[in-house]
Amino acid sequence: MAAQRPSRDALIALEQQLSAEYSEWQSRKLNLDMTRGKPNAQQLALSDALDGILGGHFKAADGSDLRNYGGLEGLPEARALFAPMLQVNPDEVLIGGNSSLTLMYTSALFAWLHGPCGKDSAWRLEKEVKFLCPVPGYDRHFAICEDLGIGMIPVAMNDDGPDMDAIERLLKTDSSIKGIWCVPRFSNPSGVVYSDAVVDRIAQLGKIAAKNFRIFWDNAYSVHALHDQAPALASLMDACRRHGTEDSVYIFGSTSKITFAGAGLAFMGASKANLAVLCKHLGKTTIGPDKVNQARHVAFLKDTHGIAAHMLKHAALLAPRFDAVLQALDSAFADRSMGHWTVPQGGYFVSFDTVPGCASAVVKLAAEAGVKLTPAGATWPYGKDPEDRNIRLAPSFPSVDDIRTAMAVFTCCVKLATVRRWLQG
Amino acid sequence: MAAQRPSRDALIALEQQLSAEYSEWQSRKLNLDMTRGKPNAQQLALSDALDGILGGHFKAADGSDLRNYGGLEGLPEARALFAPMLQVNPDEVLIGGNSSLTLMYTSALFAWLHGPCGKDSAWRLEKEVKFLCPVPGYDRHFAICEDLGIGMIPVAMNDDGPDMDAIERLLKTDSSIKGIWCVPRFSNPSGVVYSDAVVDRIAQLGKIAAKNFRIFWDNAYSVHALHDQAPALASLMDACRRHGTEDSVYIFGSTSKITFAGAGLAFMGASKANLAVLCKHLGKTTIGPDKVNQARHVAFLKDTHGIAAHMLKHAALLAPRFDAVLQALDSAFADRSMGHWTVPQGGYFVSFDTVPGCASAVVKLAAEAGVKLTPAGATWPYGKDPEDRNIRLAPSFPSVDDIRTAMAVFTCCVKLATVRRWLQG
Repeated sequence: MAAQRPSRDALIALEQQLSAEYSEWQSRKLNLDMTRGKPNAQQLALSDALDGILGGHFKAADGSDLRNYGGLEGLPEARALFAPMLQVNPDEVLIGGNSSLTLMYTSALFAWLHGPCGKDSAWRLEKEVKFLCPVPGYDRHFAICEDLGIGMIPVAMNDDGPDMDAIERLLKTDSSIKGIWCVPRFSNPSGVVYSDAVVDRIAQLGKIAAKNFRIFWDNAYSVHALHDQAPALASLMDACRRHGTEDSVYIFGSTSKITFAGAGLAFMGASKANLAVLCKHLGKTTIGPDKVNQARHVAFLKDTHGIAAHMLKHAALLAPRFDAVLQALDSAFADRSMGHWTVPQGGYFVSFDTVPGCASAVVKLAAEAGVKLTPAGATWPYGKDPEDRNIRLAPSFPSVDDIRTAMAVFTCCVKLATVRRWLQG
Repeated sequence: MAAQRPSRDALIALEQQLSAEYSEWQSRKLNLDMTRGKPNAQQLALSDALDGILGGHFKAADGSDLRNYGGLEGLPEARALFAPMLQVNPDEVLIGGNSSLTLMYTSALFAWLHGPCGKDSAWRLEKEVKFLCPVPGYDRHFAICEDLGIGMIPVAMNDDGPDMDAIERLLKTDSSIKGIWCVPRFSNPSGVVYSDAVVDRIAQLGKIAAKNFRIFWDNAYSVHALHDQAPALASLMDACRRHGTEDSVYIFGSTSKITFAGAGLAFMGASKANLAVLCKHLGKTTIGPDKVNQARHVAFLKDTHGIAAHMLKHAALLAPRFDAVLQALDSAFADRSMGHWTVPQGGYFVSFDTVPGCASAVVKLAAEAGVKLTPAGATWPYGKDPEDRNIRLAPSFPSVDDIRTAMAVFTCCVKLATVRRWLQG
């Protein structure tokens, strides 16, 4: 990259030109937001039929009353509907409320408080508890660890998933490691899909790790491909069955990015032994989930084919937004001297790496020109990106026109921050 | 009572007669259930219009999209709607998911884990943590304490609320007491409504107790009167404001027994300082509640008058069921020698006290004759009623005819168990 760097005089001229361009953007008083992976209004409208879909019919398939209490594990028909998404059997599914984050927090909390497999296994009885965190990763995962006082060890992400050599080495030498966060398909934010080989090695971690170690497999984007050639994900539970490690995994999913982001369903997959432990304590916190909303989703999505057909409509709305981001990056940074980025085939993000030491400056410049980005560092534990490089771009919510504008600002900010960095030395 | 007890010979004859009657019931192979405070299907049907009520209109009053993420504290219009039920200001309301039990568990858990008012206030840092439990009380409250390892001290209930002399004395001498469970209007199961004087004394507990003590004010039946002469409940938060103890209370409510038991809304009231602490951690567990369901409830219930009108319809369905229970008890135990019971003016339960040592036998006999009752002891911490007397009758779910049958079995079982007990000595 250094070979392509312009001379100092050229850099000074470039800085002046970019500063002028940046001032121009500032004067426009923009107010654009690319911070979060929120579905846009057109996507949400794809599921408007949910409300009222029951047409006054409030009976579950087994004849029970949807409106009343009960059914801690979820409606059988909802468990069957979402089992393929979690790649587990229907009797390994728990349907929760509207938030998979809540299921993740609850699972981690119960493991900490009560133990994932009996009183003696409670993490709070350990001197120290740590999680492995593939980076860049999802800030809300890291926030759960921070809230529960769980330490975090960053692990590098490769093109086929996290660095398994490093993970196996760490697990063999540090028994305080009790969990790992994974977003295995269209990872947040890198878009990586874990390869079959990586999934198989992850399924074997239960043989290396302590009995109270759990893989937090957040398959948030399991059916969220941007096109139909996107790579599939192997079933972790199937791999675990081969290796006899079914109890080592908690699998999470939701319809937050299928139906309504705030009014959808969250669910998890786990071995029957794990589900029994979770439900024992979950039953102290609730008399049961919202079965009416579960029935709405069953009536609306119907089956795996129904989900697939619905996701094509999302892809049609999302693909042009991702294209707008990628076109802007391609045309601004053709030689890749000022940054690298991922080209995701699904999910909600593009992960952009600046040259070292520039991410914070870029986010700050963009904010001051009216374009909000996810805070630099957010994709790292404790919000600290050691090289200050990674920026998560979330193109789902704004319109294509707004994305084009936001990306014009973003690319200007990257160039300006990079040139200023180069001028410093 | 002993004065009215029949002679031994008469008791033997009575036992034979009751045994024959009981066998007759057994031969009927009944399958009736009076265990839980579940609304019946007619009650649930009062709110069927909820599903579809939005008619495709998914905008909140402030213009935000109901379907998307966000709004941790709840929709402003939902907070305003339920504030009067919690007897607090709208900005002191948090709207949660579908279960107030979850809000109670979460509040207790966060107090235990993170502290109700700063890190140093975490209950887990104390040598011991105990709750005061007015008895008879609600088994699911006690289950939360057990799940979190919190000790429980039973306190007697009087006709005007819990024994405040005992509570004040205990709080002055035992600093490990960090909470108290209260169901202040139509208490579960006694039906007691706390008097204004008791509410005022409870509001002053914050002056006696440690800074991290919290009153868990589960106002589950706040608008659930059986007739319009039922006594009102004074506002605890107003009383706390007079005494400067606003931070000592968590107030809970839900629409579980207003709209759909499993698909309603749960909410809590707390000082702004308490809400800030709760929301700080709640924000790690979820991106926000189901705002679509909140909007449905606002559209359906509209305002305080709408709620009151709706509750009259519930009362019309519930009153005959309570009458059937009370008539059966009055006619079977006119002289009260075999038991005493409450005559509630609202709520979901009748509390029945057998002569000492009979409750378990009654519940067992009833079960073996096909009538399921709440387990004896359930209304006491750890399921242990020291005198084995209290039985909670829940008449909301069965039909009036089924209640009449179930009560005929129940009264037969009470008589048989009592006579057998008397015969033992």
